[in-house]
Amino acid sequence: MAPETRVPLAQLREFITIAMTRLGLPPQDAATVGALMAEAELQGSDGHGAIRLLPYARRIRAGGINLHPDIKIVQERPGMALLDGDNGMGHLVMKKAAEIAIEKARTCGVAWVGSRLSNHAGPASLYARMPMAHDMIGMYFAVGNANHLPPWGGLDMLLSTNPIAVAVPGGEEPPVVLDMATTVAAYGKVKAKAQRGEQMPIGWMIDRLGQPLTDPKRAEEGFLMPIGGYKGYGLALIVGLLAGTLNGAAMGSEVIDFNKDDTSTTNTGQAILAIDLSAFGDVAAFKARVDKLVREMRASERMPGVERIWLPGEQSHDRRAANERDGIPIGPALLQTLDRFAQDMGMARLQDT
Amino acid sequence: MAPETRVPLAQLREFITIAMTRLGLPPQDAATVGALMAEAELQGSDGHGAIRLLPYARRIRAGGINLHPDIKIVQERPGMALLDGDNGMGHLVMKKAAEIAIEKARTCGVAWVGSRLSNHAGPASLYARMPMAHDMIGMYFAVGNANHLPPWGGLDMLLSTNPIAVAVPGGEEPPVVLDMATTVAAYGKVKAKAQRGEQMPIGWMIDRLGQPLTDPKRAEEGFLMPIGGYKGYGLALIVGLLAGTLNGAAMGSEVIDFNKDDTSTTNTGQAILAIDLSAFGDVAAFKARVDKLVREMRASERMPGVERIWLPGEQSHDRRAANERDGIPIGPALLQTLDRFAQDMGMARLQDT
Repeated sequence: MAPETRVPLAQLREFITIAMTRLGLPPQDAATVGALMAEAELQGSDGHGAIRLLPYARRIRAGGINLHPDIKIVQERPGMALLDGDNGMGHLVMKKAAEIAIEKARTCGVAWVGSRLSNHAGPASLYARMPMAHDMIGMYFAVGNANHLPPWGGLDMLLSTNPIAVAVPGGEEPPVVLDMATTVAAYGKVKAKAQRGEQMPIGWMIDRLGQPLTDPKRAEEGFLMPIGGYKGYGLALIVGLLAGTLNGAAMGSEVIDFNKDDTSTTNTGQAILAIDLSAFGDVAAFKARVDKLVREMRASERMPGVERIWLPGEQSHDRRAANERDGIPIGPALLQTLDRFAQDMGMARLQDT
Repeated sequence: MAPETRVPLAQLREFITIAMTRLGLPPQDAATVGALMAEAELQGSDGHGAIRLLPYARRIRAGGINLHPDIKIVQERPGMALLDGDNGMGHLVMKKAAEIAIEKARTCGVAWVGSRLSNHAGPASLYARMPMAHDMIGMYFAVGNANHLPPWGGLDMLLSTNPIAVAVPGGEEPPVVLDMATTVAAYGKVKAKAQRGEQMPIGWMIDRLGQPLTDPKRAEEGFLMPIGGYKGYGLALIVGLLAGTLNGAAMGSEVIDFNKDDTSTTNTGQAILAIDLSAFGDVAAFKARVDKLVREMRASERMPGVERIWLPGEQSHDRRAANERDGIPIGPALLQTLDRFAQDMGMARLQDT
């Protein structure tokens, strides 16, 4: 097997930006999407990075994305806004949503911006992280773009793995960044197990009788398990109500499976909350408290065999730093896929960009 | 065994109010605490209802609660406030917090109120539900008052089962109310298993080697399992950062175990978020969307043996209605405890109130 290739962030960003431009996005929008997709790859969210170029391209070519959206505020109060994404790329909608939330939180202390008629926007933490640069906590909720779980005890797949992300800035310590699906395992992990011919651990999936399903090749016969059983079902539903139903976006049976349908408007809903630290008191004092807490967790006595206690987002933070220094690792399979994609688009390969 | 006694809501409220007055709370504060504790019992949160009279009384007598607190706003912006609870009863602090959040959300669309120097306030859903009467969504976070879990992979109990509650009003359907600890089982459930001499299912607790612990009599040797493993650890930490650290309240090793210490100021932190539905569009249309979604979940095809699919908060909603009609069931053990308590306080028994 060929070794992985390391690509500088700027090169990956440029490659995706060129691809997006060729697909018809205006240059500035292409650059925004390129920067955010490359950042997803930088932080190790590889399921939401360069690999997504292909399904995005497929949907754009099928006419399922509005390349010239009029992304606008349709409802507004001092501490909130509702954005209509006009079926544009989700990255554009949510970047704007984050900017509005940050701006409004400066005045109100806290601000919430929801979206409808948006689209898949990449990893949740990308947007939850944005307020941190302004000394704010970020919180992000989204309705996923394919339903993989039924209500607890049910068989109809009516819920997605609706993610929650929260980012809390530290001082000297890395930020605490939680980015989690409301299922035990993400569907991508199941696919990876199938590719490697491995069995899944008990607890990832159940079959239609409620029994553990461990053969990933039979994944279509079962469902992802929500975390904590009925609790995760409740969380997935609540996240969907906040990010979807509240905004008039798709939820439940209205969710379009973007793996199977490239043309229907997904009407994706998301929400972002920004909390301005300075509204609560001294920012440096807050960050010092976060640092103290982080160090306390890390210094806990460990179970036998546990080498280190990690904070949420810490591994991703380290990966981000390493990838900025050494370049972003692109595995041989992904590189081959991107090569074919570049050829197909009549553009230079990633390595030659 | 004696059958359970059914007590009208007003009678339980009166009993607790009298008790609180005798313990030294001003009459209006005693009435507020009485009403909220009785409401906890009404909705079936029996772990947070009348049973708490005893530990509250113990703490009050030990001087661990300020009976005449000056609960005041110490930080404020149009969409947020930070309340200093002055070590008063948590119910008083969080009722005021909810009222401020509701008032501010009317103007800003969304508002967040945090607390510090508060105390245990009963079930999370009690406060998340408050904004619903004003056509708002409520969200509540709290730092629990005893640490029961270590960071993932660790052995030092640095985290509580920090709960999250969210309440979303429906139209004709009951509201969707999620109220969950970030552990698979609450510690009260473990105690109940021990009392009944039953084993716990695998997944509730682990021992210091990370192995399943199923004997509830050995509970002191192990830890509660967070939901979804490291995900629940992340959630418990994030909830604590939002409800505790952000407000300058206790978190991590600063948390006082209120089962073992009646005098130290707990410096409990909580937070409530109110989201005004009318800011997002037509309220009736939103409620109709919630109803549609609720019915869709309920109508899902079911696994064999599953009689009904429940929505989060639906069972509690039914119980609330039944208890309003038939009176609140008080089991013989609790009644005996309350009888002794009444005798000790020199006040009429619950049944004679």
